[in-house]
Amino acid sequence: MSHNSFGHLFRVTTFGESHGPALGCVVDGCPPGLPLRAEDIQADLDRRKPGQSRFTTQRREADEVRILSGVFEDDRTDGPRTTGTPIALLIENTDQRSKDYAAIRDLYRPGHADYAYDVKYGIRDYRGGGRSSARETAARVAAGAIARKVLPGVTIRGAVVQIGPHGIDRARFDWEEVGRNPLFCPDPVAAKEWESYLDGIRKDGSSIGAVIEVVAEGVPPGLGAPVYGKLDSDLAAAMMSINAVKGVEIGDGFPAAALRGEENADEMRPGNDGPTFLANHAGGILGGISSGQPVVCRFAVKPTSSILTPRQTVDRDGQAQDIITKGRHDPCVGIRAVPVGEAMMACVLADHWLRHRAQIGDGAPHGRKG
Amino acid sequence: MSHNSFGHLFRVTTFGESHGPALGCVVDGCPPGLPLRAEDIQADLDRRKPGQSRFTTQRREADEVRILSGVFEDDRTDGPRTTGTPIALLIENTDQRSKDYAAIRDLYRPGHADYAYDVKYGIRDYRGGGRSSARETAARVAAGAIARKVLPGVTIRGAVVQIGPHGIDRARFDWEEVGRNPLFCPDPVAAKEWESYLDGIRKDGSSIGAVIEVVAEGVPPGLGAPVYGKLDSDLAAAMMSINAVKGVEIGDGFPAAALRGEENADEMRPGNDGPTFLANHAGGILGGISSGQPVVCRFAVKPTSSILTPRQTVDRDGQAQDIITKGRHDPCVGIRAVPVGEAMMACVLADHWLRHRAQIGDGAPHGRKG
Amino acid sequence: MSHNSFGHLFRVTTFGESHGPALGCVVDGCPPGLPLRAEDIQADLDRRKPGQSRFTTQRREADEVRILSGVFEDDRTDGPRTTGTPIALLIENTDQRSKDYAAIRDLYRPGHADYAYDVKYGIRDYRGGGRSSARETAARVAAGAIARKVLPGVTIRGAVVQIGPHGIDRARFDWEEVGRNPLFCPDPVAAKEWESYLDGIRKDGSSIGAVIEVVAEGVPPGLGAPVYGKLDSDLAAAMMSINAVKGVEIGDGFPAAALRGEENADEMRPGNDGPTFLANHAGGILGGISSGQPVVCRFAVKPTSSILTPRQTVDRDGQAQDIITKGRHDPCVGIRAVPVGEAMMACVLADHWLRHRAQIGDGAPHGRKG
Amino acid sequence: MSHNSFGHLFRVTTFGESHGPALGCVVDGCPPGLPLRAEDIQADLDRRKPGQSRFTTQRREADEVRILSGVFEDDRTDGPRTTGTPIALLIENTDQRSKDYAAIRDLYRPGHADYAYDVKYGIRDYRGGGRSSARETAARVAAGAIARKVLPGVTIRGAVVQIGPHGIDRARFDWEEVGRNPLFCPDPVAAKEWESYLDGIRKDGSSIGAVIEVVAEGVPPGLGAPVYGKLDSDLAAAMMSINAVKGVEIGDGFPAAALRGEENADEMRPGNDGPTFLANHAGGILGGISSGQPVVCRFAVKPTSSILTPRQTVDRDGQAQDIITKGRHDPCVGIRAVPVGEAMMACVLADHWLRHRAQIGDGAPHGRKG
Repeated sequence: MSHNSFGHLFRVTTFGESHGPALGCVVDGCPPGLPLRAEDIQADLDRRKPGQSRFTTQRREADEVRILSGVFEDDRTDGPRTTGTPIALLIENTDQRSKDYAAIRDLYRPGHADYAYDVKYGIRDYRGGGRSSARETAARVAAGAIARKVLPGVTIRGAVVQIGPHGIDRARFDWEEVGRNPLFCPDPVAAKEWESYLDGIRKDGSSIGAVIEVVAEGVPPGLGAPVYGKLDSDLAAAMMSINAVKGVEIGDGFPAAALRGEENADEMRPGNDGPTFLANHAGGILGGISSGQPVVCRFAVKPTSSILTPRQTVDRDGQAQDIITKGRHDPCVGIRAVPVGEAMMACVLADHWLRHRAQIGDGAPHGRKG
Repeated sequence: MSHNSFGHLFRVTTFGESHGPALGCVVDGCPPGLPLRAEDIQADLDRRKPGQSRFTTQRREADEVRILSGVFEDDRTDGPRTTGTPIALLIENTDQRSKDYAAIRDLYRPGHADYAYDVKYGIRDYRGGGRSSARETAARVAAGAIARKVLPGVTIRGAVVQIGPHGIDRARFDWEEVGRNPLFCPDPVAAKEWESYLDGIRKDGSSIGAVIEVVAEGVPPGLGAPVYGKLDSDLAAAMMSINAVKGVEIGDGFPAAALRGEENADEMRPGNDGPTFLANHAGGILGGISSGQPVVCRFAVKPTSSILTPRQTVDRDGQAQDIITKGRHDPCVGIRAVPVGEAMMACVLADHWLRHRAQIGDGAPHGRKG
Repeated sequence: MSHNSFGHLFRVTTFGESHGPALGCVVDGCPPGLPLRAEDIQADLDRRKPGQSRFTTQRREADEVRILSGVFEDDRTDGPRTTGTPIALLIENTDQRSKDYAAIRDLYRPGHADYAYDVKYGIRDYRGGGRSSARETAARVAAGAIARKVLPGVTIRGAVVQIGPHGIDRARFDWEEVGRNPLFCPDPVAAKEWESYLDGIRKDGSSIGAVIEVVAEGVPPGLGAPVYGKLDSDLAAAMMSINAVKGVEIGDGFPAAALRGEENADEMRPGNDGPTFLANHAGGILGGISSGQPVVCRFAVKPTSSILTPRQTVDRDGQAQDIITKGRHDPCVGIRAVPVGEAMMACVLADHWLRHRAQIGDGAPHGRKG
Repeated sequence: MSHNSFGHLFRVTTFGESHGPALGCVVDGCPPGLPLRAEDIQADLDRRKPGQSRFTTQRREADEVRILSGVFEDDRTDGPRTTGTPIALLIENTDQRSKDYAAIRDLYRPGHADYAYDVKYGIRDYRGGGRSSARETAARVAAGAIARKVLPGVTIRGAVVQIGPHGIDRARFDWEEVGRNPLFCPDPVAAKEWESYLDGIRKDGSSIGAVIEVVAEGVPPGLGAPVYGKLDSDLAAAMMSINAVKGVEIGDGFPAAALRGEENADEMRPGNDGPTFLANHAGGILGGISSGQPVVCRFAVKPTSSILTPRQTVDRDGQAQDIITKGRHDPCVGIRAVPVGEAMMACVLADHWLRHRAQIGDGAPHGRKG
C-alpha cells in the first residue's frame, strides 16, 4: 500500500510540492527495450504547461524533464532504451513566488484541501498548495508519456466537452480541432463562445468547472479482471485522483440510469476481427473487461477555490475570517486537466495490459479470428 | 496486486460463482476485540437478499452466512470477539437452476460480461453469469457488516434516488421511509409512482437503470491521503466495481462543472468541534481527505442486459444470432445495489480509518478543540 | 498490504485456526484453462497429513479438500478447468480436542507464539495454537498444488537433510529414497539412525529441530527482478513465514561467507540451451534472478516448544509458573515441513513466472538459442 | 506490486544505476511532524561511503544527499519537519569511470548478475553493474535514516561477526569497538587479525565473504502479524534483498536445528514491564511477532565475483571466454553491508510499527503493566 503510488505492474510513484525544489516520479515495471528520450516526454509536458494562454495560470515553468535512471544507450542500442529498471523523472521548480501565499498560511480556502491537510497532518506546506497543488500532475503527464510507449496501436485523446453550463455540439466533434484552440475544445464554434465566457469569469476573479472526455482507441479486448481489478474501477480511481474531480463516467454514465435494457444494449454483428458492435453505450468495458471498442471516460472538474470574491472561512485558530485568494490561478483548472486525463488513461491501460499478459500471456485473445 | 481483493489494511478478498457450491470472502486486518456474531452480518445480508418483493429476482437464496475463522469465544470474552486474524465468511448456494442458462452458453448478451469473459479467459462459467453475477455482492455486504463495526460513531445509509427517468423530491427525503418500501426510496410519493412504473417494465420483460446515493455521517476528519490514496479515489473505485455501475459522483458531482467558484465554496464558520460548514458541495471530501462533513456518494446503475426483447448478437463461433434472455432476473438491479453501496462505503472508510491511524496514530485530529 | 496473503500475481490468502470450524485459502490470479481436480490437491495434502507415523502428531485429520470456486466443467472442457477467477479451497477440521488446551489458556509456552499473540491482540484462540498452529500449513500445501500446475516443466522436491545434530551423507543422496521412509530423508542410512534417535526424543517428551532442503529443477532463467522483487528475497520471506523456521539459505548459504571469490564462482561454458554452469554455489539465482540452474533453498526449523519437561514461565497475570505441555504434538515439526517448503517454493516460482511474463512477455529468454 | 519498492506502510522505492546521473529513493508513508535535515541522513551515508579505508572500493563518491520533497520549514515549525507527504532523496553520481567496464560489456562474470540481467531483459547497463551494483544501497541507507526517526527508543546496531572463516570471540563483543576500526568489528583482537587477512585477499586480487549481525534493542512487543506479515519473514526478505546475501538467520538460526525443546526454550520470569526472558534463542520474535526482547538477525554475504583471478565464462554470443575483472571493487563487500543491514532493519521495524498501529492503535501493549 502506498499513498502516492498508482498502478500495480506499471507503477508510478510521484513526489514533490508546488514550491519545493523539484517534483517528479519513479515509473517501475516498464518493459525493457522501449526507445525513450526526454524529448518524448517533453512533448506531453508542454501540452499541460502553464502560462500558454490567458486562460491558464501565469506561473512560468519550463517543466523541463530529466531522466535519471532506467534507460541505457550504447552503440548497440540504437538510441536510448528502457532497461526494465525503474525510470526516475525529475522536474525542477523554477518560478515559485512563495510570498504570494503568506496570506493563506493561516486561512482555509473554502472548498480547498487547506483545512483537510492541516486537520490530518498538523503541518502544511501552504506555498502554492504544497502537495495538493495541481502542479503534481506534471509528474503524471510525464509518466503517461512512458505508458503510451507500452501500448502500441492505442491512441488516447482527450477534449473539454463542457465548460460551466456550456456543452459542445456532438455533430461538430473534431479531434483535429482540439489542438487548434487553447481550450482543448473539439467543437470550433463552442471554442469561440467559451473564450469570451471565460474572459468574463477571469475578469470577475471567479472560476468555473468543466467536463473532460478521454477516449482510447485500439484497446485490445480482454484488459481488466473481476471483480476489484476491473478496468472501469481503476479508471474511476485514476480520474477521481486528479485535483478537483468530483465525478467519473464510463460510456453513457449517469444518463444510462434512465435507459431501458433494449436501449442500452450494444448489439453485436459478425465482424472481421471479433464482433462488430452497433453502439457503444458501455464505453468499451463489459463486466470490467475491455471489449475491443473505444474506451470512453468522462470526468467533472469543479471550479477552483482560489477566487477573488470574499468568502467566509475560519483561520487556523478557529476564528471567523473572510478570505480572498490572490496569486496566479487557473480560472478553469479543467482545461489543463485534458493531458492529465489522457496520461491517467494511458497509465491505467498500460498497467492492465501488463496484468493481462501476466495471467493470459501475449497470445491473441480467445475467440478472435486469426 | 490482486484481482479479487479490495482495500489495503481492511482487506476483503471475495470468491465464488453464481451457480458454484458457495461464495464468500476473507476479511483480513480487522482489529481484534470487536464483538461479532453471524447474526450481525445476517441482518445486512437479509436486506440484499433476492426474492423479497416482485421487483427483484425470484431466485430463493437463504444467504445464510457462516463464520469460519477469526472469532473466538470463551467465558472470558463476553460473546464471540474478533481475534485480529483473518475472518472467513461462507455462504452456500442453494437455489441454482443452471439449466436455465444452457441457452446462453454459446450466445453473448449485448452489454453483458459474457463476451468479455470469453475473449479474455477462453472459458466461462456461464451459469447465472458465473463470477460476473451480482450474486458476488452478497460477500461484499457480509464484509461491510464487519467494516461497520470498525467505525464506531459512523452511520452509513443508502437510498435509490432515481429509477429510469424518475427522480425524487428532495424536500420529501426521509431516511425512515427507505426501510418502509421495497424500493429503498426515501420519498414516499416517488416510491408509489416507481412501483407502478416498475410493474410496467417487468411486464414488458424489460429492465431499467437507477441512481443510488450513499451517505456516511460521523466520519472523522483526516481520512484519506494525497494523491492516489485519496478517499474519493477509493470510493470511486469501490462503487465502480459494483456490477452494472457506469458513473460515480462525490458531493455535487457532475453538476459541479456548471458552478462558479463562489457558488461551489463550502463556507466555514467557527464551531464547537472544528469548523461548521455552511454547505456541502464537496461531499465531505477536500483534497482527497475527509473534512468531518457527511461523505456523500452517488452512483449510476445501468439496466441489466438480461431482457425478453430480442436483440442482435453473435455466438461463440462469431455467427449472427438473436437473443432473448429467460431465467430469473432483477428488472432494476439498482434496487438491491443499495446495501451493496453501503457496504462498499463502509469498507472504504474502515480501510482509511486504519490507514489514517497507521500514519497519524489515534489521537484527536490536529486543529480540533478538545 | 495484507497480513495473511502471500504472493503478488499468484496470490494466496489463507484463513483458519487449528480448532475452528475450518481452514482454507483463496488463490487469486491463477491462469485459466488449467485442469484442476480436488484429487490433484489431495495428493499433496496427504503427504503433509498428521498421524501417518509415530514421528508426527497423533491428531487424525482427513484434511479433505473441497474446491468452492474458480473451476468449471461442461462437456466442452474435458474435465474441470480453472477459469481465471479466484479458487477457494476449504478443509474442515474434524478431530479437535480443545479441552486438551485448557491448561495453556493462561500460560505462555516459552518459545511459543502464545505470549506474542496475547501481548499484541489482547485475545487469543489458545486451542491448539489457534492461528499460530502449523495446521495452517495445510492451506499452503493446497495452494502449492495449484502453483505446480502453473509451472510446466518444473520439478520441485524437498527432503530433510538434518535432524538435531545429525546430517546426511551427500554421497548417498537419493530423491527416490525420500518417499520410502517416514522422515523424508534422502539417505537410507541416516533415515534408520534418525528413527531411533527420534524414538528417544519422543520418549523423553522432548522435541528437536531439523534442516529441510528444497530444490526446483527446470526453472527458466529470468525469474526475479531488482531489487526488492528478487527471487531469493521472496523465497527467504516464504520459508521464514513457515512456523518455527529460524534461518534460510540459498545455494551455499552461510558457508559462502567463508569462501574466496575464485571458489565461489560458478564458471560457465557454452551449452546447447544457454550456458552450462560448472558449479551451483549460487543456488540458481544471480542478482535476484534465476539463472536456469536448479534453485536450491534450505531452511532451519527449531524444536517445538510443546514439551513434557517443565519449564519456567509466567501466566497471563504475570505470575511465575511452571509449564508442561501435554496434548498431541510433533516431536520434530521439521519433518512435515517438507511438503510445506515445496509448496512455498512452488507458490514463489508461480508468482515470479507470472511477474516475468507481465514485464517481458512469454517469448523465449533473451540470449538463449532457439 | 512493485519490483523496486520495499515495505508497505513505510514504503521505500529506490531508483538509479551505478553509472547513471543519480540514484535516490522516495519514502512514502512517513508520519508528519518529525524533524528531518539532510545532515541527519548524511551521517548514516558517510558510514557506508566508499573509499574510506584500503578495505573498500577506491571509487570516490561524496554521496551527498538532497531532500527534494516532504519536509517543510517556517518560523512555526522549529526547523524542517516531515509533512506526511512523500520524501524524495537524491544522490548524484560524480565519480563514474565507465570505460573501466567496456571489458565486461560482452562478458559474464561468473556468480554475478551480468548474465541474469541479459537473459531477462535483453539489454543491460553494464557500467559498474548498473542496477545490480551495491551502489543502490546508498538509497537504502538514506531511507533507513528516516526510518530510525519513526522509531523512538529503538537502537539499531550492526557489526561484522565473521570474515572468511574467521569469527569473533563473543566474550570480547563490544559495540563501542565497532566504530573504532574500519571493519565494523566488535572484537578488537579479531579486527587486527582480519586487517592482515584482508590485506592478503586484496593483494591476491581475490575477494572474501562475511557474516553481519544486526541487533535492534527497545523494540516494543507486538510488531508483526500472522502468517505472511511476520516480522521475521519481512526481515528475511529485507536482508536477502541486499546484494550478495545468501543466508539469513533470526536468533539462533541454523544452530537451532540441533537443539532440543528444553534447550531452545526462552524461559520467562515476572518482570517490571512485561515478563523477563532468561534467554533469547528466538531472537526477539515469537510466532512472527516481536516479544520485547532484542531482535537479532544475521546474514551471510558471499565474496564478490569481481576478481583478478581468471575464470572460465561465456560471452554474450555464447562463446567460451576467460574473464578477469579490473576496476575498483570491494575485496569484502560484506564490510560496507553493515550500515545497509541496519537500514533494512530500521525500515522493516518502522513499517511494522505503522502496521501495528493501524490494527491495534497506539495504546500500550496488552498484558503489560502500566
